[in-house]
Amino acid sequence: MDSLPALDRDASPEALPDSPAAEAPTFLDRLFDAGLLVRTGVDGLYGRSGAFESVVEALDRLVSRLGADDKAEVMRFPPGMSRSTFERSGYLKGFPHLAGTVHSFCGNEADHARLLACVEAGKDWTEKQAATDIVLTPAACYPLYPTAAARGPLPQGGLLFDLQSYCFRHEPSLEPTRMQLFRMREYVRMGSPDEVLAFREVWLDRGTKMMAGLGLPLAVDLANDPFFGRAGKMLANNQRNQNLKFELNVPVNSVEKPTACLSFNYHQDHFGTTWGLTQADGSVAHTACVGFGLERITLALLRHHGLDLDAWPADVRATLWG
Amino acid sequence: MDSLPALDRDASPEALPDSPAAEAPTFLDRLFDAGLLVRTGVDGLYGRSGAFESVVEALDRLVSRLGADDKAEVMRFPPGMSRSTFERSGYLKGFPHLAGTVHSFCGNEADHARLLACVEAGKDWTEKQAATDIVLTPAACYPLYPTAAARGPLPQGGLLFDLQSYCFRHEPSLEPTRMQLFRMREYVRMGSPDEVLAFREVWLDRGTKMMAGLGLPLAVDLANDPFFGRAGKMLANNQRNQNLKFELNVPVNSVEKPTACLSFNYHQDHFGTTWGLTQADGSVAHTACVGFGLERITLALLRHHGLDLDAWPADVRATLWG
Repeated sequence: MDSLPALDRDASPEALPDSPAAEAPTFLDRLFDAGLLVRTGVDGLYGRSGAFESVVEALDRLVSRLGADDKAEVMRFPPGMSRSTFERSGYLKGFPHLAGTVHSFCGNEADHARLLACVEAGKDWTEKQAATDIVLTPAACYPLYPTAAARGPLPQGGLLFDLQSYCFRHEPSLEPTRMQLFRMREYVRMGSPDEVLAFREVWLDRGTKMMAGLGLPLAVDLANDPFFGRAGKMLANNQRNQNLKFELNVPVNSVEKPTACLSFNYHQDHFGTTWGLTQADGSVAHTACVGFGLERITLALLRHHGLDLDAWPADVRATLWG
Repeated sequence: MDSLPALDRDASPEALPDSPAAEAPTFLDRLFDAGLLVRTGVDGLYGRSGAFESVVEALDRLVSRLGADDKAEVMRFPPGMSRSTFERSGYLKGFPHLAGTVHSFCGNEADHARLLACVEAGKDWTEKQAATDIVLTPAACYPLYPTAAARGPLPQGGLLFDLQSYCFRHEPSLEPTRMQLFRMREYVRMGSPDEVLAFREVWLDRGTKMMAGLGLPLAVDLANDPFFGRAGKMLANNQRNQNLKFELNVPVNSVEKPTACLSFNYHQDHFGTTWGLTQADGSVAHTACVGFGLERITLALLRHHGLDLDAWPADVRATLWG
């Protein structure tokens, strides 16, 4: 990864305007007060105003424009995926604490009466809910790998996909950048190690230029996924030692703990092996993806350019809304 | 409801082109074969191609244009809502069988090891999952009512909202029009009975013209929601007797059982009473909504104009992508 773009790795305190005093409302409170996010009573679960959505949609179009020449195949999955696919994906090994399974009522009328009595009495009515065949999508690319593998070996030169979906992660938080339901845009490359690493290089460059062009202070850093438990620490170390994950960080909640707005991931042959996805020559396919956290980038823009979209710098507005 | 538009209530068999012979592939199979929908292994859970999404997006914009003059407040909620809000909404009384609760792993490392052993052995690993604070959104407007009520009494003249979200209903089916996860666009009106009924009249007219303009055979019919159990039959009858729900039906899977693509609902004071939502004069607010099943309308277009979007009638293409 010698060709990583040289970036300022120490965002200065000046990079975060209007840092609130101790008694001042938090950034989340200010987003609520401005009506940009809407309270639901659950941490990390918010409604979005039309203004907020207009930024998300503009970012989505911007990412499309940056990748347009590559002619990725567009595919969109709903926010839930097959449970059996999810089980086979290996997600539960690394991130059992983040997953969300969907459960439903399968009882008769007597069971229904008991359920309603529980709700009425404020007791737990969810124990009788039974797992359905659906699990919430943890990352936009998870439903893609078995879909691609079902088509047979990759063509010469591999494949490139364009994805976006709502994703779920069970990590209630008061940081507005850590939502339980959020949208992730992704490009996913499948092919030889050289092909997928070249893809990641291209997007490290494009993503960095995109975010700098939006007037955001940033740093690209080696990173790891939030693996569960002690064994997870080893997995995280391995991931770092092999330079598998980079994140593009922007100070949003604080300068000390900047927010990963984009991530650049090399999965090696993990998904290829898991799903029997092969290259044209029969060898196992490698994969890589670049992910854009659409709400996180929106929040970074709101933090740095202010809560009034009309007052954003003219060049940023031009980039988003031409 | 004397002013309901006069419509052909008996779609003729000619209204459904290319009805397949007994051995021929089903409409769902043809959608898979054309790559418009993508198999996930779960009935009612599908990926969408870029072409399919381009229709959904065009319909979404068309609905925006039709409603633009009304200056509805745009709000977007994620595909999950607060469980306590959901409990209070009354949805569980009518539709316990359709709801989806989100459950997560809350154990330690030993629990994790047991979970993985269950997955490995093909045993049920979901029993230990615990309900989170989130339930999948059953209809786009459910998260809105408490949000609106929290603002205080409605202003004079009431309010109008513009919503869209993925919704979940646990009803696995091989009919492509009955998805478990699908997108619903909605306008929601809150105000006096006269105001919300006038809103419904306007959209009965606009929605009918919109669908006719897309070259679709249709009928507007009195309808009821799929209430659960024997008590549900009575609720359904009441709903019909009071003309509370109309659906705009288009033959898609069959002429005998056409598909509700739009619905026009008068909730009377149900949500107003449930959420303490009041009019400017302090009396309880009435509400109504019009819902557009974006995947269902897309499927109706594919069924009637063919699976090749480029070959659709020029006027339909102009209306969508003009």
